[in-house]
Amino acid sequence: MKENKIEVKPYLKTHQLNPENQETPIYFLRQWYTPSKYFYRRNHFTYPMAENNNFFLQIKGFVNQPMIFQYKDLLSMPSKTVVVPLECSGNKRAFYEPKVFGEQWEGGAISQGVWKGVSLIHILNIVGINPSAKEIVFTGADFGPRTDLIGYFSFSRSLPLNKALHPDTLIAYELNGKPIPFKHGHPLRLIVPQWYAMASVKWLNHITLVGQPFQGPFQTIDYVYYPDKESDFGKKPVTTMRVNSIIQKPLDYQLLNTGKQMVNGIAWTGKGRISKVEISTDNGNSWNLAKIYEDQSSPYAWTAWSYVWSVKVKGEYTILSKATDSSGRSQPSEAEWNRKGYGYNAISKIKVKVE
Amino acid sequence: MKENKIEVKPYLKTHQLNPENQETPIYFLRQWYTPSKYFYRRNHFTYPMAENNNFFLQIKGFVNQPMIFQYKDLLSMPSKTVVVPLECSGNKRAFYEPKVFGEQWEGGAISQGVWKGVSLIHILNIVGINPSAKEIVFTGADFGPRTDLIGYFSFSRSLPLNKALHPDTLIAYELNGKPIPFKHGHPLRLIVPQWYAMASVKWLNHITLVGQPFQGPFQTIDYVYYPDKESDFGKKPVTTMRVNSIIQKPLDYQLLNTGKQMVNGIAWTGKGRISKVEISTDNGNSWNLAKIYEDQSSPYAWTAWSYVWSVKVKGEYTILSKATDSSGRSQPSEAEWNRKGYGYNAISKIKVKVE
Repeated sequence: MKENKIEVKPYLKTHQLNPENQETPIYFLRQWYTPSKYFYRRNHFTYPMAENNNFFLQIKGFVNQPMIFQYKDLLSMPSKTVVVPLECSGNKRAFYEPKVFGEQWEGGAISQGVWKGVSLIHILNIVGINPSAKEIVFTGADFGPRTDLIGYFSFSRSLPLNKALHPDTLIAYELNGKPIPFKHGHPLRLIVPQWYAMASVKWLNHITLVGQPFQGPFQTIDYVYYPDKESDFGKKPVTTMRVNSIIQKPLDYQLLNTGKQMVNGIAWTGKGRISKVEISTDNGNSWNLAKIYEDQSSPYAWTAWSYVWSVKVKGEYTILSKATDSSGRSQPSEAEWNRKGYGYNAISKIKVKVE
Repeated sequence: MKENKIEVKPYLKTHQLNPENQETPIYFLRQWYTPSKYFYRRNHFTYPMAENNNFFLQIKGFVNQPMIFQYKDLLSMPSKTVVVPLECSGNKRAFYEPKVFGEQWEGGAISQGVWKGVSLIHILNIVGINPSAKEIVFTGADFGPRTDLIGYFSFSRSLPLNKALHPDTLIAYELNGKPIPFKHGHPLRLIVPQWYAMASVKWLNHITLVGQPFQGPFQTIDYVYYPDKESDFGKKPVTTMRVNSIIQKPLDYQLLNTGKQMVNGIAWTGKGRISKVEISTDNGNSWNLAKIYEDQSSPYAWTAWSYVWSVKVKGEYTILSKATDSSGRSQPSEAEWNRKGYGYNAISKIKVKVE
């Protein structure tokens, strides 16, 4: 058979250019780590100017000694390296029914990187936490207008103390062995394992310890689950990633031959590890365990899985994947609809036709 | 306000890599001609080897004098340049309900180029058409297996004589002022204005004049409208492009502010010119004429259009665009569903929320 010497490669999937929002071509990547150029890009604003984006990190508020750290100070501190998938909480928003407004992310607003940096707790121990501190607010260099409020806003997000003080919550300066690319937060980015990625503030500029709940719009308006379309009744904040999976192969609505078909994908969770992935090739009537591949030394990393499907009978098939994590959570049949379309994690579903 | 010096650009949208199928990021391009790197790529097979892809063009079958032309012979013949949008007949397949199998093209399986080459009729006059010739079969260098038949097949398509003999049906060797890029058919590509792009055979290798209807699978199985899901009843071949349009801006499910909003897009047809584009911002209750911009000297080119929408009241809006051509065809409310998902051209529709 002929050989193909022509380069063929996937691209980021463009959702918007101003601000830049592009998703990872996740269905076409088999790598354990997402190469930086394929990392999904999610922005609320145009990129900050490199000049605003200075090499100083200020820590202030409820601390014993407010301080400004230099980038090079951080590089000389004890470092930590963690493998962390970042997932936009709007990942898979396009699949909600009824559909919701906002970026129509399909399955690729997730990417996995090797992040190196300094534990936030190490720096907080240097400045000293005032006992009245309740939350820690992280502010990036990016700012701009919103469609729903008048004025300009920085991207700021807070963490509760217990999450902020976990030793794996990092002030990161490297992604995949290199300085973090500008579009992903250079020089410094907060990395919060297990939380949806709105918590992992890019272009980290200053950190403020506060005595009461932070009220910024990216904390109290966005990144909140609103179960009701009209009212705010029942709202709750978006925090840890839900258990989730995608089927990378075959592709949705692909035409296949009879015979052995490899079904594979990835699964991830913000709570514990993936304990199993079940596959159905008959729309949920029966389920089989997929083989799972995990990196035991990386407790936050996603899990790859595969299942060999022998298909003899031509026809249309609905293939499902359902991940379960060690905290006992499984992907539900239906995702919890919410007005802003966060946290979609229904059982993953594709259709194929065997001919 | 800050300036953004960081490069932000759209990418092809990947549907499949083997064979390569990627669509133009059409919603993010405002150019009259699609740059070659953003031309959509639609393949049935892996790319042919460059060696197979020789610089000879053979003409045989029902001709007075079978001949082989060299690429350089063609370059020295009288040339013609035409602006032609190529649209995959599966463009917008993803929008059919019920959904159909195959590449899930959204609106970007269309690109417009400036094609330069030799009129096919010029070459046919040299070889002499035998009066028994009924159709002309064009075969590319690409070949491979199919999911539905056993064996290997070349990509071959036929044209009726009247279409083949139109002086704007070209054996093209240039796209946008440069030799056609390999992925788009280098060295020679047939260009058939007004027909869906399956007719514009890439890597054109030989041309065969035949005395009866051509029966190749890309003629008689694919590129046929099958109105019925189960039977072949009512089938008809896919030929000229239907009248169609897309709304490039705003984006589907975008959040907007009140005030003046520019609504714009393109419209095209395979029969005559676009005579009007109507826009509704109230889901079809009322319609307004868009301003249209066309290149009078390019009878096949798409038409750009724009409409200024003044929106004062917050809420959700459904915006429609409906193109009409000079042959009297308008985009229908619903596309004619067909089993293989060709020719989708329902009135274009997006939803936005003004807040």
